[in-house]
Amino acid sequence: MSHSMFEQHEKTLQGALEAIKNRTYWTPYPEIPSGKIYGETAKADGLSAFEGRLNQPFELNQPGTGRTQRSEVSPYGMSLGITYPKPDLDELIPAMQTAMQGWKSASIEARVGVCLEILDRLSSSAFEMANAIMHTTGQTFMMAFQAGGPHALDRGLEAVAYAYQEMTRCPRQVVWEKQVSKTDVVRLQKTYRILPRGVAALIGCSTFPTWNGYPGLFASLVTGNAVAVKPHHGAILPMALTVNIARAVLPEADFDPNIITLVPNSLDGESISKDLVTHPGVRIVDYTGGTEFGDWLEANCPQAQVFTEKAGVNSIVLDSVDDLKAVTSNIAFSVSLYSGQMCTAPQNIFIPKGGIRVGGDTISFDDAAQAVVKGVNWLLSDQKRAVEVLGAIQSESTVRRMTAAATEGGEVLRPSGPVAHEKYPEARIHSPVIIKVRADQTDLYMREVFGPVVYIVETESTAQSIELAARTAREQGAITSLVYSTNDDVLRESQDALTDAGVPVSCNLVGPIFVNQAAAFSDFHVSGANPAGNATLCDAAFVANRFHMLHTRVLL
Amino acid sequence: MSHSMFEQHEKTLQGALEAIKNRTYWTPYPEIPSGKIYGETAKADGLSAFEGRLNQPFELNQPGTGRTQRSEVSPYGMSLGITYPKPDLDELIPAMQTAMQGWKSASIEARVGVCLEILDRLSSSAFEMANAIMHTTGQTFMMAFQAGGPHALDRGLEAVAYAYQEMTRCPRQVVWEKQVSKTDVVRLQKTYRILPRGVAALIGCSTFPTWNGYPGLFASLVTGNAVAVKPHHGAILPMALTVNIARAVLPEADFDPNIITLVPNSLDGESISKDLVTHPGVRIVDYTGGTEFGDWLEANCPQAQVFTEKAGVNSIVLDSVDDLKAVTSNIAFSVSLYSGQMCTAPQNIFIPKGGIRVGGDTISFDDAAQAVVKGVNWLLSDQKRAVEVLGAIQSESTVRRMTAAATEGGEVLRPSGPVAHEKYPEARIHSPVIIKVRADQTDLYMREVFGPVVYIVETESTAQSIELAARTAREQGAITSLVYSTNDDVLRESQDALTDAGVPVSCNLVGPIFVNQAAAFSDFHVSGANPAGNATLCDAAFVANRFHMLHTRVLL
Repeated sequence: MSHSMFEQHEKTLQGALEAIKNRTYWTPYPEIPSGKIYGETAKADGLSAFEGRLNQPFELNQPGTGRTQRSEVSPYGMSLGITYPKPDLDELIPAMQTAMQGWKSASIEARVGVCLEILDRLSSSAFEMANAIMHTTGQTFMMAFQAGGPHALDRGLEAVAYAYQEMTRCPRQVVWEKQVSKTDVVRLQKTYRILPRGVAALIGCSTFPTWNGYPGLFASLVTGNAVAVKPHHGAILPMALTVNIARAVLPEADFDPNIITLVPNSLDGESISKDLVTHPGVRIVDYTGGTEFGDWLEANCPQAQVFTEKAGVNSIVLDSVDDLKAVTSNIAFSVSLYSGQMCTAPQNIFIPKGGIRVGGDTISFDDAAQAVVKGVNWLLSDQKRAVEVLGAIQSESTVRRMTAAATEGGEVLRPSGPVAHEKYPEARIHSPVIIKVRADQTDLYMREVFGPVVYIVETESTAQSIELAARTAREQGAITSLVYSTNDDVLRESQDALTDAGVPVSCNLVGPIFVNQAAAFSDFHVSGANPAGNATLCDAAFVANRFHMLHTRVLL
Repeated sequence: MSHSMFEQHEKTLQGALEAIKNRTYWTPYPEIPSGKIYGETAKADGLSAFEGRLNQPFELNQPGTGRTQRSEVSPYGMSLGITYPKPDLDELIPAMQTAMQGWKSASIEARVGVCLEILDRLSSSAFEMANAIMHTTGQTFMMAFQAGGPHALDRGLEAVAYAYQEMTRCPRQVVWEKQVSKTDVVRLQKTYRILPRGVAALIGCSTFPTWNGYPGLFASLVTGNAVAVKPHHGAILPMALTVNIARAVLPEADFDPNIITLVPNSLDGESISKDLVTHPGVRIVDYTGGTEFGDWLEANCPQAQVFTEKAGVNSIVLDSVDDLKAVTSNIAFSVSLYSGQMCTAPQNIFIPKGGIRVGGDTISFDDAAQAVVKGVNWLLSDQKRAVEVLGAIQSESTVRRMTAAATEGGEVLRPSGPVAHEKYPEARIHSPVIIKVRADQTDLYMREVFGPVVYIVETESTAQSIELAARTAREQGAITSLVYSTNDDVLRESQDALTDAGVPVSCNLVGPIFVNQAAAFSDFHVSGANPAGNATLCDAAFVANRFHMLHTRVLL
């Protein structure tokens, strides 16, 4: 079997292996949507490729598929009008199991090569993907390009690198030799082979379908499993494009395209997810989404290994700062970016009732809270800038949740309001609501309110702030946390308390770096150590259990 | 903190790291119970240390413990008369959580050093341990010494090495630097720390308490967890000795001894296992034992990561051989060794009804089956040799199961019979029963009949033999398989079919190497790919999920 794809991309693999070891900044996929990098016509070509998909059936040529009736409506207003194949699992899963036969027997290099080639083709399609991500998730074009394209590819490549490392940890053949007596030596020819688990189901999310989906997809694929991609009904197109590219690459390397398939349900149809994940042939489930279904998956798929990223409630602890404006600007951007729809976005800001130290002075709680409000107001004061930060809100239910939050208790310091978009008058855009609550109003803030909702919590002290942030992580889950303090003891105590609660801690972020950002090859996304999920993107545990190592021993 | 234990044993660790990479034969723990290696008085000292334990309370000085009333009776006849601490979990688990605080914050090297020192001390106590293993499991002294001592220590060391590798895969600190614009560089100081899951429960077995127990014990311990050791009520002493040594080493390195505790229940008491494994503080469960409780654990401990080794039904496929006597001698030893009480012992021997090729000739099914019977008869014809192969039967229920099997169907080719032991007249020793069955009598042989019970299955053909062996593995679980064929196609087909069913394959074993043997650092024990268990001793998946990696990011 030819390993030409492997050879072609081996440098990328080596770079990724170095990066996950050193954990420094590295990427092979440029994040600047520039014509100089992607080609002068790339942007226009990507847009026209995207527009060419609209109001058409999306052809994938899968076995056992009919047509769904209706698909996505862009959070920016327009209906995409695409129809997708509707699968019959009893036909599709067996076809995938058949397709797996050749895939699992292939060399590690062959599978790695195919995965790296898929990632490379996806990189070439970054502009088309950006439009698809934008008009399903509601992200701005820039975020859609970066998070949905190169950053998602980074996460996929990271999973391939981890899996490659696991698969190659032991030799494929060895002669085992033991002196069993003065004269006798036993020699065994041992051969090690990889046995994948089976068909994997990827249950995608509506906000970051590629970024959250690629790690599981590529980890399963490269270890020899087939993957059934079940996208969120509101964000099918990005995963359809992904599957389409993978199904083009596989036959070029002499593999059956049914190693990867799309398993969507229509916007108004019954969800196929439960049927898929409980199918006896499905042995791996990767999931990103709400806590309720994540908990259900963890309890109800005994035949499968289940990897989840569920919801979290992320905290900021405000203790003391040098430059208040720099801090509140950073916070304002973090809570406004994509309207709080990132799983890494902060929801709760803990401020002591006695106020905070700013340089040599103390400012009151109210002044500190108002500084956050002002930061958000300033950021969103320019309508053009506002829509380029907020993006659109993916789901109508998020708007309803936000509206409800404003009336459920606490004091609204900043009401939400609709924001107009010049180009997309029907876009679903709303600025964040900021609500002040007392520390004892845990029923309000110690729960996930997904979307542009920020609680400022008045605490007794920074010690209580830390304790409540840690308790929130422990009880509700958390994916990120952010602490501002000029006091080393406070930084150390909060790092200890929050990491103990399973949440990574960022400290004193100002300028162009935000708590929302998680860097592939360096940051572990979701710790697995609190209710926000049971899996980490990406560590050895995320890949090692997707295959088994089987040995044969032949007496020589 | 001093790393003197780490430095002292670093060469052992390096040897283990090399061995798991190369998978060749290696061990630092000598398997020959020789005075030249262990010291001329070691054997006598070990015996007298063991005898000194008898009819005494076993002191461990744990918090929250009273006394149990009764403990083990040796399968060789005598009552050990030891009493053990009976724990109150509501006092013990919090004490362990407290003890974990210092343990989890220690350096990787400090924890690894302590674990290697514990293994080293256990090695020095190998003779005392051998007596303890012999008189709880019923193993012969030689097996008790080797499998219960050095081979078990190999498995423990292997887990430490795998865990060390996982914990050191990323640096502890790194400066992450990204050029975010023409003029701006963001620099983050990142620190990675290990967060263990919590208290681990080790549920031990009655036949190989140390060999099956040490991997989970050391994997949990070295990754920063505390471990509650719940031994089988019939084999407490080996794990009490282990815990005792660990509790002596820990304070020498300034750690709280409650990082490891013994949680036994008395022979006639209520089992404490379910209370332990469902305790909210228990976050890891390692289990070796019967399928029923293993399945229960996998389904009923949602708060914990559960690693199981359950039961399997192991097969031999007899197709064609060069030297029949060499083959049947090997098989006879494999099925007789420790009376079929090894999880790796073969139970079913598949032979085609048309017979098998032997050199250039064909012999009939009946002649082939009788050759196996004769092999067993010859091996056990000398009473002294017989007891040195058979050992004693650990549990009375195994004898009852064996007796029942002889009357449930099929044709008894060789009845079981009691075997007398010169030194231990009350020893529970019985030779194996060999029963001929048809391929369609799956209710008889396609189930685990733990103990000295062998089925010879008459099949249509070798192809059917392979298919039935694979089906047995897939449906009932299997841990080993053995194929005899002089035909390369048959070897390849059986390797493909059996490894696909998740069972490692040995081929054409004759002489002093047996399918029952699993070599640390080389063989993966239990694949996780069939119902025989969900965990492998030892691979990355066995260790990687016992801790989480948490990072902090501080803006520089």
